[in-house]
Amino acid sequence: MIIAVDGMGGDFAPSEVVLGCVEAIKEFNDIKIIITGNEELILKELHKYKYDTNKISVIDAKEVIDPNEPPVMAIRRKKDSSLVKALNLVKQKEAHGIISAGSTGAFMAGALFIVGRIKGIDRPALAPVMPGKNAPFMVIDVGANAECKPKNLLQFALMGKIYFEKILKVENPSVGLINIGTEEEKGNELTKATYSLLKESGLNFVGNIEPREIPKGDVNVLVCDGFTGNTVLKMFEGTAATLFDVLKDEITGSTLGKVGGLLLKPAFKNIKKKFNYKEYGGAAFLGVDGICVKAHGSSDSLAFKNAIKQCIIFHNNNILNNIKEEIIKSNHIQNIDAMDII
Amino acid sequence: MIIAVDGMGGDFAPSEVVLGCVEAIKEFNDIKIIITGNEELILKELHKYKYDTNKISVIDAKEVIDPNEPPVMAIRRKKDSSLVKALNLVKQKEAHGIISAGSTGAFMAGALFIVGRIKGIDRPALAPVMPGKNAPFMVIDVGANAECKPKNLLQFALMGKIYFEKILKVENPSVGLINIGTEEEKGNELTKATYSLLKESGLNFVGNIEPREIPKGDVNVLVCDGFTGNTVLKMFEGTAATLFDVLKDEITGSTLGKVGGLLLKPAFKNIKKKFNYKEYGGAAFLGVDGICVKAHGSSDSLAFKNAIKQCIIFHNNNILNNIKEEIIKSNHIQNIDAMDII
Repeated sequence: MIIAVDGMGGDFAPSEVVLGCVEAIKEFNDIKIIITGNEELILKELHKYKYDTNKISVIDAKEVIDPNEPPVMAIRRKKDSSLVKALNLVKQKEAHGIISAGSTGAFMAGALFIVGRIKGIDRPALAPVMPGKNAPFMVIDVGANAECKPKNLLQFALMGKIYFEKILKVENPSVGLINIGTEEEKGNELTKATYSLLKESGLNFVGNIEPREIPKGDVNVLVCDGFTGNTVLKMFEGTAATLFDVLKDEITGSTLGKVGGLLLKPAFKNIKKKFNYKEYGGAAFLGVDGICVKAHGSSDSLAFKNAIKQCIIFHNNNILNNIKEEIIKSNHIQNIDAMDII
Repeated sequence: MIIAVDGMGGDFAPSEVVLGCVEAIKEFNDIKIIITGNEELILKELHKYKYDTNKISVIDAKEVIDPNEPPVMAIRRKKDSSLVKALNLVKQKEAHGIISAGSTGAFMAGALFIVGRIKGIDRPALAPVMPGKNAPFMVIDVGANAECKPKNLLQFALMGKIYFEKILKVENPSVGLINIGTEEEKGNELTKATYSLLKESGLNFVGNIEPREIPKGDVNVLVCDGFTGNTVLKMFEGTAATLFDVLKDEITGSTLGKVGGLLLKPAFKNIKKKFNYKEYGGAAFLGVDGICVKAHGSSDSLAFKNAIKQCIIFHNNNILNNIKEEIIKSNHIQNIDAMDII
């Protein structure tokens, strides 16, 4: 498998990106990595390590896309950016997949325009797997589509299910609809119409899931529009960060607290590890015709190595073809239904 | 001031409701309370305490609305319920305000149909004040309106601002728009159109606020549609609950952890107090023509007493008239604008 890596994306690029790539080719067989970006900087990093030089190559790219740039314009104008060059490798079938820790907006816009959608998927969706109390869960979409139609959410459910089955090896994954009440008639127009679609979909649909239940991780795939998913993701991060801040203030505020905090250090470490996104690789951008993984902006080499691992599992399990087959099947069903109605 | 209290609503009704009322008339002067509900049960509770019997009266109501009943139907059919009778007291100006810890849906439907809207307010909104790290903040709306128009959110902002100014004594409160990006052009159609309205509103509008920032409590009033607000509220509760669960498991999982946990007991107690919704009373249902406060379903006597205090401050600061005056002013401005365009 050949993986294109945007060498300049993310808070710790290119040093942590390069180190992640070096560690990955040592750990995983049969992969080659192409790093795009400022050749001089990247080679300087690479020269710090001993590695099989046949397995990592560099393609020079003079431009870098800033996370604050308007995404679509950045993709159109910066043809010589590390991101656009990496995406082009996927488009031209010179790489099977791409990883970037840079601008999420530019990544999604670029994947959409350069790599393109899978036929039959109307809206690709960003789908991170997050750590829950009892098990990891996926929220799909977390921001690619601020406005959605019920059909989009049905396709998100289908893609999420395939991902969970093939990558996380969960048999018949459960699918929930994020909603503000558990009853079928609750919510807005989108959730009401989506509920009916999911109920008839043949998926293991477990009904509406209130946001309060999400962090427990009892449901595998949680579908919603991108505005809601982004809100869920950021409230999850924000609430956890605030609580740990408050806890830290309390602990360091008294001698008793400091001693208690010291004794609980292993406990806090376990919790931190449990909720560490780095263990999960990146967020897959599902529905585009290539393996596109968005790594967290603050990814270190471990996060990069795991994102590369995620690409390999994605590739070896033929997820793209699985999605293509399932979408044809589901469209076939939809067409029959439409004919029945006529 | 006369306050109607739904004696049968909430997980701990009527015992905690009654105790809260008894404590309130001892602490606050110049109030009278009318408790609606099963007279026999309520009198039995009242007889446990010594109190000024001139200040609490009971109106018998044979029916109770269950939280699982469809709200509108429950309000229409159960005319002899504790909630409907309490709402009628407000409608007939026999009470200035009402508090209920029962079904949120029935409470909002009843307040809307029985008490009625303030003229000029298109959609009343449920507006809890929540504990943030640095200061309390309000999210408006958290579930009364799953679908909203930009104008609704502008009115939410106006009402939230008055509440913060008059009840929480914050001068020129800041107003933020909950959105999935900080830039003006981010979000869905609703947030984009609302941004323009808020920018021109004359309110202390601080722009888009990403959900990640909400728990910090740096912005006073956060406006959004009810679907988003409900998601924010429930993710806040759910993430906190899950994290404390995980922490508890870690602490009780080892001897070292147990000792550490014991030493940190005061710290945990402080945090619990800091994030205790009971200190804040209930969620005001703003935009109806009466003081309507929804207490948390699991309210104890302290939460009830604080909800009563909230009603008193609401009343003494003339919030309803303030909202009426501001809405006339703002509609006046809107009309002038409309004329300018023509």
